[in-house]
Amino acid sequence: MSTHWKLTLAYDGTDFHGWQIQPGLPTLQGALSDAIARITGERVLPQGSGRTDAGVHALGQVASFSLLAPIPASNLMRALNRVLPAPLRVLAAEPVPPDFHARHSAMEKTYQYRIFPAASGAVCPPFLARYAHVSPWPLDLAAMRQAARAVLGEHDFTSFAATDPDLATRADSAKPPANTNIRILYESNWSQDAIADSDTPSLLRYTVRGNGFLHHMVRNLVGTFLAVGCGRFQPESIPVILAARDRSQAGPTAPASGLFLVQIKYPE
Amino acid sequence: MSTHWKLTLAYDGTDFHGWQIQPGLPTLQGALSDAIARITGERVLPQGSGRTDAGVHALGQVASFSLLAPIPASNLMRALNRVLPAPLRVLAAEPVPPDFHARHSAMEKTYQYRIFPAASGAVCPPFLARYAHVSPWPLDLAAMRQAARAVLGEHDFTSFAATDPDLATRADSAKPPANTNIRILYESNWSQDAIADSDTPSLLRYTVRGNGFLHHMVRNLVGTFLAVGCGRFQPESIPVILAARDRSQAGPTAPASGLFLVQIKYPE
Repeated sequence: MSTHWKLTLAYDGTDFHGWQIQPGLPTLQGALSDAIARITGERVLPQGSGRTDAGVHALGQVASFSLLAPIPASNLMRALNRVLPAPLRVLAAEPVPPDFHARHSAMEKTYQYRIFPAASGAVCPPFLARYAHVSPWPLDLAAMRQAARAVLGEHDFTSFAATDPDLATRADSAKPPANTNIRILYESNWSQDAIADSDTPSLLRYTVRGNGFLHHMVRNLVGTFLAVGCGRFQPESIPVILAARDRSQAGPTAPASGLFLVQIKYPE
Repeated sequence: MSTHWKLTLAYDGTDFHGWQIQPGLPTLQGALSDAIARITGERVLPQGSGRTDAGVHALGQVASFSLLAPIPASNLMRALNRVLPAPLRVLAAEPVPPDFHARHSAMEKTYQYRIFPAASGAVCPPFLARYAHVSPWPLDLAAMRQAARAVLGEHDFTSFAATDPDLATRADSAKPPANTNIRILYESNWSQDAIADSDTPSLLRYTVRGNGFLHHMVRNLVGTFLAVGCGRFQPESIPVILAARDRSQAGPTAPASGLFLVQIKYPE
């Protein structure tokens, strides 16, 4: 009798070559597989809710796999955190029904993108540099909010998908409708932290929640919103960009360091 | 006519082999020297207020050096931050009188040591792991506070100095009285952050301010306070350890990752 497991993970993605296992490179899936093998002697390939890219962080990534060894959940979590590298932590471990799959069972995913606004000459603290994108341009937050609202709801997000043919069809979505770039966004907004002190400007945060995401979709949305924020695009151009279904119409891909996979929602 | 400069620096020390320049290794002094040379063509060796060890961080390290090139202070700061690696930032640049020396002119230094208390099974977030020491033991904060108070004032800190003869006499002090291990501590206390949410315990912070510090002194004090916190030493043993002037009487050296050089005070 094997047990099927669901792990909730947090990681600092800076020093990993992304989620997906690659020979000879430090990856999150590889580190987790190694740690499980070291504890149980069983070599499994944990399935993630999606494959985060190199440099992308997670506050609540989910992975699933099966083990023959009978282990209490709290022991599995403690043992994994003892052998995993400090930038990768198990926040929760729970046995789940055998039909649970971290990616296929996912209903919704939430991402956040953090920007340090440095236009005023403010210096990004070194302790934040790994976890935010530093923008040197003055940003029009009202225009960025208007642009973010324009992608809410159901759209064909081809203009915001990675153009590499291998990557575009790659499942980075929670519930991937086969062969379509249509996704539904339930939440898409910019917020700014309350100002803690006068020397350091507060972070800008883009939060987006949807039923699925194409590869690079969040970073391409953010890159486009930043282009709106510094006046290169008008917020009114977002529906036009969506309608074009053409990656070249949207803005550049924002850097990985600002992106956090926040939460995956599954059926109760 | 050369200009004498004072820089205030913040850095994430994790990926540096300490302050002091070493051939072929990434160091803070080396990175700063390289950046200055790249901007001005002048090769100088900036003097720090002290040589932080590998892995130690800074919120307000100070460095001084002279340049022949005439540059406005704001331009020097901006240009340095453009070429320096993101983990090392210049927070301020100002011209100072030629007799200013980052180490010799220092009156007081403040350090902080951060501990993530994981005794309850709490998992240290990966984004904090570089900037705190994770303690797996239940800690008696009242006993640690009592121990911290016992080192206030003027003492011979030989019991808390690195025993390596090359290192023990090394100037890591603000105002090093020649050939003595006597230092004065004006502040030495433990605090705990207000609890932000119930899942994550709040950080313990040790703050110490004094006229100078021997090599490894803060980390050896913290290692000893942790031994008090988990009951291996009594708080009453601190005066006995001080009086012994014997490194072997005190606790172990706490890891570098929790230590921050916070501030250097100079005469007005």
